[in-house]
Amino acid sequence: MIIEVIKLKFFIDKLVGNINKTDSRICVGLDPHLDLIPEFILDKASKKYSNSQKNVAMAVLEFNKKIIDEIAEYTTIVKPQIAFYEKIGLEGLKTLEKTVEYAKEKGLLVLLDAKRNDIGSTAGAYAEAYLENENIDAITINPYFGIDGVQPFLKYKNKGAFALVRTSNQSAGDIQDIKSKEEKKIYEHMGQLVKNWGKDYLGKSGYANLGAVIGATYPQELKNLRSLMSKVFFLIPGYGAQGGGAEDVASGFDKNGLGAIVNSSRQIIFSYKNNDKYSEKEFAIAAGKAAKTMKEEVNQAIEKFHS
Amino acid sequence: MIIEVIKLKFFIDKLVGNINKTDSRICVGLDPHLDLIPEFILDKASKKYSNSQKNVAMAVLEFNKKIIDEIAEYTTIVKPQIAFYEKIGLEGLKTLEKTVEYAKEKGLLVLLDAKRNDIGSTAGAYAEAYLENENIDAITINPYFGIDGVQPFLKYKNKGAFALVRTSNQSAGDIQDIKSKEEKKIYEHMGQLVKNWGKDYLGKSGYANLGAVIGATYPQELKNLRSLMSKVFFLIPGYGAQGGGAEDVASGFDKNGLGAIVNSSRQIIFSYKNNDKYSEKEFAIAAGKAAKTMKEEVNQAIEKFHS
Repeated sequence: MIIEVIKLKFFIDKLVGNINKTDSRICVGLDPHLDLIPEFILDKASKKYSNSQKNVAMAVLEFNKKIIDEIAEYTTIVKPQIAFYEKIGLEGLKTLEKTVEYAKEKGLLVLLDAKRNDIGSTAGAYAEAYLENENIDAITINPYFGIDGVQPFLKYKNKGAFALVRTSNQSAGDIQDIKSKEEKKIYEHMGQLVKNWGKDYLGKSGYANLGAVIGATYPQELKNLRSLMSKVFFLIPGYGAQGGGAEDVASGFDKNGLGAIVNSSRQIIFSYKNNDKYSEKEFAIAAGKAAKTMKEEVNQAIEKFHS
Repeated sequence: MIIEVIKLKFFIDKLVGNINKTDSRICVGLDPHLDLIPEFILDKASKKYSNSQKNVAMAVLEFNKKIIDEIAEYTTIVKPQIAFYEKIGLEGLKTLEKTVEYAKEKGLLVLLDAKRNDIGSTAGAYAEAYLENENIDAITINPYFGIDGVQPFLKYKNKGAFALVRTSNQSAGDIQDIKSKEEKKIYEHMGQLVKNWGKDYLGKSGYANLGAVIGATYPQELKNLRSLMSKVFFLIPGYGAQGGGAEDVASGFDKNGLGAIVNSSRQIIFSYKNNDKYSEKEFAIAAGKAAKTMKEEVNQAIEKFHS
């Protein structure tokens, strides 16, 4: 029996520990687009439950569990996107609750993608709502309110937060690319702020407990921010379906292969849709293979980038 | 019997209609801070239900209903802040559901304060989650993602959205006050974007279905934005407990007394806490009086401002 002597206190240290243990830098997004879930799963649920919201929610839960079973080996953290669960109503949120519990049982860390944000007292209510859930390790937040709206999340040292800096979508630049008088773009200012806000929350690993979201679809911005924010961990979404590739994300990592996790959602969990090799029934196996491939691609690209 | 011939299609026209009908420009925030809810209500619920989450949720529902009963006459729209319901878990969200239903029954419009935001496909899931609820008329959103993340909410023409432009909190300026090369602050750029995004969504009233959130705590910025965005309705939070007064918000209204709604939460619903005249048992009466006072103060200040 191994007695766990040192309890890792900071979320960011738990993340670094899990990356080192799994040699995986990938995050799998659990975004159950209902029109992409295999029909046989939806059918099975609809025979079992009379309520239609419950049908859908139970189908999503079964889908998620099977996906988690297959991807866990290649993945360090999962990221359920709460919008897809809120859309299914209260039953959807029960499925989210059971999904995060299941993911934790399988040794995964859980990052809730919720992008919550508000004035301080309300941000405090959000932090309480999610970070006091034992199965949620971290949450994404929108920092447009400034430090008041970020502070309540920083209080939970064993939990983490990732603040939006550069989003992965096409219109990200509408506000984020506006150039300031100091010849810096707004996303750079946001990066600087996030770095400053997190500097008193460094874990033993040397990284800050407040991370930043930087889209894989903007490799130049990613490179730029990496040099600006050396102690800040990045969550890099936009890999795969949104267009980012392994070579695009490599510059987000430091020479120790740390400093970032790369998220893919659709390209992993709905991999069976784009792959003739797998039938609908083999959706989970397809997801596992896709996770393995992505894990290896990312690792190889980082090695190449730093060699 | 009056047959309703013209169905108002746009949310913003429904809002203008309700303002004209009630002569009220106030929005009451239903933010149930648990430590401010009268103890006798919490006690009563705890005797009735065995589950502690359910206790709290039922107490909040009773509190909200009694508040709504008393404020409805003086109020045009209510704004539940979803964070406080998410904090109570699934039972809290059931209370939210019942609260918005009750508010609609009482003739109030309902604005869900959720500040949701994400890339397009995910923003679509949020829009579906909330704007397809028949008892929710509008939602607040965070526009940091640019138009991709706003578009899905605009599709629902009978529903509205209010995008953050200038928030009411102390650290609002961290990002919002950064000056661009064009000598404009970021909140002004955001105001310009929100104006442009909404310009194809004008109701019969002449106002856009996409509104803007501008804090009462920044009267100079409010005045500035009013002249920049003449067709955009403002949701002005920060009145009362956060420090904004009637004279601060008057400039948010046009000469027809339209163009804005002013929100107060704590100062209305927990009015009994700051007023020796009312006992805990009279919390709802105190809230009604506070709403009446605020309605009159805002109307008088607008009249003075435009005279």
